[in-house]
Amino acid sequence: MTRNELVKEIFAKQSYLIVGLDTDPLKLPRHLREQKDGMLLFNKAIIDATKDYCVGYKVNTAFYEAQGAKGWEVMEETARYIPSTHLKIADAKRGDIGNTSAQYAKAFFETLNFDSITVAPYMGEDSVKPFLEFKNKWTILLGLTSNSGASDFELQKLLQPTTAAIEAAELALDVASHKTEFLYERVLRTASTWGSEDNLMFVIGATKPQEFTNIRNITPNHFYLVPGVGAQGGSLKDISELAMTIDCGLLVNASRAIIYASGEENFAEAATEVAKAYAAEMKSYLPK
Amino acid sequence: MTRNELVKEIFAKQSYLIVGLDTDPLKLPRHLREQKDGMLLFNKAIIDATKDYCVGYKVNTAFYEAQGAKGWEVMEETARYIPSTHLKIADAKRGDIGNTSAQYAKAFFETLNFDSITVAPYMGEDSVKPFLEFKNKWTILLGLTSNSGASDFELQKLLQPTTAAIEAAELALDVASHKTEFLYERVLRTASTWGSEDNLMFVIGATKPQEFTNIRNITPNHFYLVPGVGAQGGSLKDISELAMTIDCGLLVNASRAIIYASGEENFAEAATEVAKAYAAEMKSYLPK
Repeated sequence: MTRNELVKEIFAKQSYLIVGLDTDPLKLPRHLREQKDGMLLFNKAIIDATKDYCVGYKVNTAFYEAQGAKGWEVMEETARYIPSTHLKIADAKRGDIGNTSAQYAKAFFETLNFDSITVAPYMGEDSVKPFLEFKNKWTILLGLTSNSGASDFELQKLLQPTTAAIEAAELALDVASHKTEFLYERVLRTASTWGSEDNLMFVIGATKPQEFTNIRNITPNHFYLVPGVGAQGGSLKDISELAMTIDCGLLVNASRAIIYASGEENFAEAATEVAKAYAAEMKSYLPK
Repeated sequence: MTRNELVKEIFAKQSYLIVGLDTDPLKLPRHLREQKDGMLLFNKAIIDATKDYCVGYKVNTAFYEAQGAKGWEVMEETARYIPSTHLKIADAKRGDIGNTSAQYAKAFFETLNFDSITVAPYMGEDSVKPFLEFKNKWTILLGLTSNSGASDFELQKLLQPTTAAIEAAELALDVASHKTEFLYERVLRTASTWGSEDNLMFVIGATKPQEFTNIRNITPNHFYLVPGVGAQGGSLKDISELAMTIDCGLLVNASRAIIYASGEENFAEAATEVAKAYAAEMKSYLPK
């Protein structure tokens, strides 16, 4: 899916909602929990119930892998069931040395035919590049995540780049004048030279709204995949006001708040209602 | 597998070799490439051929995922075939918010029954902790990796921790007196407080021997999983001399150098010879 196609979908639907399929077999409504294909039936029902109010689906690979090979089959079937009008996101957080990342890219972009995959940046450029080489596919790199652990490394201060021969005095001056940056800022700056606004997005958690203005300054036109609204407590209003661009530039994910809106037989209707409410709120933030 | 059991195996076999099963269906010997179960038959033959000379197997999940659900089945069968005397490593580089990491831990420690999994540190403590909660299982956290991209973030300088209220002048002094550290050093220091030497290892690439003495100073007793010997060019001698501890503390992985030692029908015999040669060299570095 190209950026133009994605933006067109957003404005046609007046929604930038992504529905997260973090499907846990133990949390299915009872009548599905007892069925062999319960996980898949649940996903299909959620997709049918929400597709008019969202622009994509995010499949959280962990929940499928926890079920072994049969879970991987459910993931394949689910990806196949998502309409081609919708962005298919594999939330897989992969990343490894080049020849291995190339295999992950093959797995998600070819074998499973996802449009995009989330990727972890720790191992650097050659671990990310193999994903960027696929035409009309998106790499969604972790920037600033929504969890508390973001403070351990992502929000640690790095010295800004200097030449190896720089003198201590000059370095000291840099710090005195606050020439430092967070690790996540370095990731945004460095990685945005690896890909373009047409094949690279960033994961930016909704739980850190105080960083959004700064993040938008560093990457003014990139799309962000924003988790953390809903169960994790982030505000859709805050992040929309702080980071929306002229062509939206935001994909806001809600998982548990939608798919587990009801744990009863009416789960699909309940999911429709929550997705519809998100979309209605989003409409009010989108540029006219 | 406990640390005691692992160390006992190492000294009984006089080997700290891990064989990496980065099995690419396109690289199988021709007679297996044409068979439906070629990937699994290949893995079983490699395991039979090398088990006397290694203490574990590292399954690179990317190569199996690239084959979809049937690849995941081959991974399950392969893990089941590895003898219980050998450490089973899922080289999966996972890591996500807590509830998702818990699903990955379930996938690899319960469903697939691996002894250990490689984990990416970017998202911090709550993304790693769910793996550490499993008894007699190992979390192998990325420290300093073997690839060129390690220079993008892992080898970038962070300021050492300071209080929020620290004055610029004091900060400047810290830098002038070199109170900085690489990101990977911060990862080692921080993460070693999350787990113990009995459930946490680090991935340290063999291609950066100049960092090994420093790494051993920071984490004097942790085991390291060391990729990068063989196809990537790292030296077994260098890293063994620089980082071996009294109970070894090293697991050195070779993948392509062993499993593709020959591309012909004699691939298993060729793998035996290479594994045997590694073990013979390792014997000379192990403490008596």
